[in-house]
Amino acid sequence: MENPISLPRRHMLAGSAAALGALGLASWSQGAQAQAAAPAAAKPLPPLANWKDPKAVIVHSSSTLETRRSAFGTSVITPTNQLFVRNNLPAPDASILANREAWTIAFEGVKAPRSLTLADLRTLGVETVATVLQCSGNGRGFFPSKPSGTPWQVGAAGCVLWSGVPLRNVVLALGGAVDGMVYLTGTGGEKLPEGVDPLTVVVERSVPIKALDDALLAWEMNGEPISLAHGGPVRLIVPGYQGVNNVKYVKRVALTREQSQAGIMAKRYRMTPPGSKGDPSQPSVWEMGVKSWVNGPLSEQGPLRAGWTQIHGVAFGGTRAIRGVEVSVDGGKSWHQAQLVGPDLGRFAWRQFVLPIQLAAGTHVLTSRATDASGNVQPESRIDNTGGYNNTSWQDHAVTVTVA
Amino acid sequence: MENPISLPRRHMLAGSAAALGALGLASWSQGAQAQAAAPAAAKPLPPLANWKDPKAVIVHSSSTLETRRSAFGTSVITPTNQLFVRNNLPAPDASILANREAWTIAFEGVKAPRSLTLADLRTLGVETVATVLQCSGNGRGFFPSKPSGTPWQVGAAGCVLWSGVPLRNVVLALGGAVDGMVYLTGTGGEKLPEGVDPLTVVVERSVPIKALDDALLAWEMNGEPISLAHGGPVRLIVPGYQGVNNVKYVKRVALTREQSQAGIMAKRYRMTPPGSKGDPSQPSVWEMGVKSWVNGPLSEQGPLRAGWTQIHGVAFGGTRAIRGVEVSVDGGKSWHQAQLVGPDLGRFAWRQFVLPIQLAAGTHVLTSRATDASGNVQPESRIDNTGGYNNTSWQDHAVTVTVA
Repeated sequence: MENPISLPRRHMLAGSAAALGALGLASWSQGAQAQAAAPAAAKPLPPLANWKDPKAVIVHSSSTLETRRSAFGTSVITPTNQLFVRNNLPAPDASILANREAWTIAFEGVKAPRSLTLADLRTLGVETVATVLQCSGNGRGFFPSKPSGTPWQVGAAGCVLWSGVPLRNVVLALGGAVDGMVYLTGTGGEKLPEGVDPLTVVVERSVPIKALDDALLAWEMNGEPISLAHGGPVRLIVPGYQGVNNVKYVKRVALTREQSQAGIMAKRYRMTPPGSKGDPSQPSVWEMGVKSWVNGPLSEQGPLRAGWTQIHGVAFGGTRAIRGVEVSVDGGKSWHQAQLVGPDLGRFAWRQFVLPIQLAAGTHVLTSRATDASGNVQPESRIDNTGGYNNTSWQDHAVTVTVA
Repeated sequence: MENPISLPRRHMLAGSAAALGALGLASWSQGAQAQAAAPAAAKPLPPLANWKDPKAVIVHSSSTLETRRSAFGTSVITPTNQLFVRNNLPAPDASILANREAWTIAFEGVKAPRSLTLADLRTLGVETVATVLQCSGNGRGFFPSKPSGTPWQVGAAGCVLWSGVPLRNVVLALGGAVDGMVYLTGTGGEKLPEGVDPLTVVVERSVPIKALDDALLAWEMNGEPISLAHGGPVRLIVPGYQGVNNVKYVKRVALTREQSQAGIMAKRYRMTPPGSKGDPSQPSVWEMGVKSWVNGPLSEQGPLRAGWTQIHGVAFGGTRAIRGVEVSVDGGKSWHQAQLVGPDLGRFAWRQFVLPIQLAAGTHVLTSRATDASGNVQPESRIDNTGGYNNTSWQDHAVTVTVA
């Protein structure tokens, strides 16, 4: 079958003639891969995101779009027009973007509480950080228990650049935290439906106060003012934490003694065991675990040609950098060390990995297994839970390709 | 007037209470800045680039678009829909993108010359690199001599992610370079007008063969297949070199003993002294010099409010990393050390810089001066030349703001 060769990164970079000679001409005529455009999405793009690339996304509903596995390139940053969308509530009216500078956020749990506009925030500092933004339900589609919620595969995730002010700057300028605060709580500015208890619907999330070290109040995403679909004018970014903690249209930031009592915090987005109901004793979906998956080559457009190929994908470790990635082409029976390629955008970003390998005619099950800087290894299996959260299983994320 | 404080990066990162306390509340009410959207471009977007953001660009002609200074954010990477466009010849027909994998490049000057398709190239390796892509005429608009050509200000530049195969991999797989080769020559695939000597119009550029260490045959830009406007299906990327050397629709790559005889190489894009004609004895526009400019705050939308502000911009050193950036708010009489912020994408990328400073009511001339890793300092003045190339003058790139 395949005859793996070692093409360590130092050879790739130095251009070792010996290693590259092994790629010989003969194999090329069979080794190329057709990477045609993915078929258009079956459902039309919703108004909130009608500017997305329809070929790059799967439309699940009017508030849920997923990036196709085949659309992830190897350029580290996910283009905004391909990034997934997931909104818990209908987005506010677009008129909130008409005067971004006037957007106002209330700060509480600090010694000098007050409200600040975006224009005020801009005076307090600028930082840019690359983070993996991932819905905590990414990979839910691989749960055999079919939890309710969007059956995301790999594409409810992206690696995104954010610019804004470090939240710690704001807290310090407001006199610092009131003593004894344990959580950082953000509240979204969505309009709540009438006639229901606000706590059952409001998007309000609490994370451990240590997240303040890295949190950002962001007004720019991938070089542009943040769009309505992605939480503009201002979004709370909690690097390394699952998407739901990155509160859109943030209108209140509070340092608190207790976690929010909102249903989205107290009952939902918990690692609730099958057969149980969500409650605050169960772990919340906070820091992301170490995870990776293969994005190519795929045989969606027909069989791959036998010979050399470059298996590539992404790997991230939540708040921890990636130490390495292994790739398997036999469903996890054996593993090869992949190379990390491209710029390293910091510990909250994902890394691209590449494994050059020969694939013979037949069927191959490609998967990857990442290790983070603390030595945590991506697990073989998911942890079952009623919400279908935190799926980091390398087995679930395997993809089968056909080589002719 | 201004009362500059020192907010070194380590304080910014550590969140020094003392330093941030100095940002006090009182100043905020006056310090905020309105950053409304720029006015729409006067000319409509040309068909080649009708998918660009009209608010972010200045349309000079059907083949020349510039990013507005006010549209550059602080997120390091320039979004594709805001990136400048400059084509020397009309782009090929869009049908060349219908089957990207079949795009064919002839390789010459190697021991085993042959043609390879994009599908072949994909089997030989994958690398991702961030580079500043800049038209060599960027800043031409500041020449008092008004050279012919597009009067670019700062926006014929961007920082872009490219993915493709390292060209050295291809050369080594083709047996290596023929002995004695001195240049790397790329030829564009544009259709040449009939009835004229091809040498007068063909886009064919030669760079020193040392560029082979870093050159890429790229098929992806910012995470998407390269668009027609930007040179897809395959573009030759020569990191750290002026834009014209990054040949679009590349159809031939040759290692050569001599520079190309094409007019674009032999006569144009030379540092031709005023009153002279271009000839090969004059320096070609190859490696970019150290350069920076301020992108904000601007007072295009009305006066800034007095008080604290964060002056930001970009700095790059061609093939050399940026060591530091100084900012002046008095037109270069005095300088303040700025902070480099955001992820470092490598020596070919630009860095964002930020200087927190107070601006009093009045007029201020903001400019920046970068130093590269070799100690080269961005010069005060441009070098005069007939083409208006290589303008790195910090004086020319200054911007005047009004504070009320």
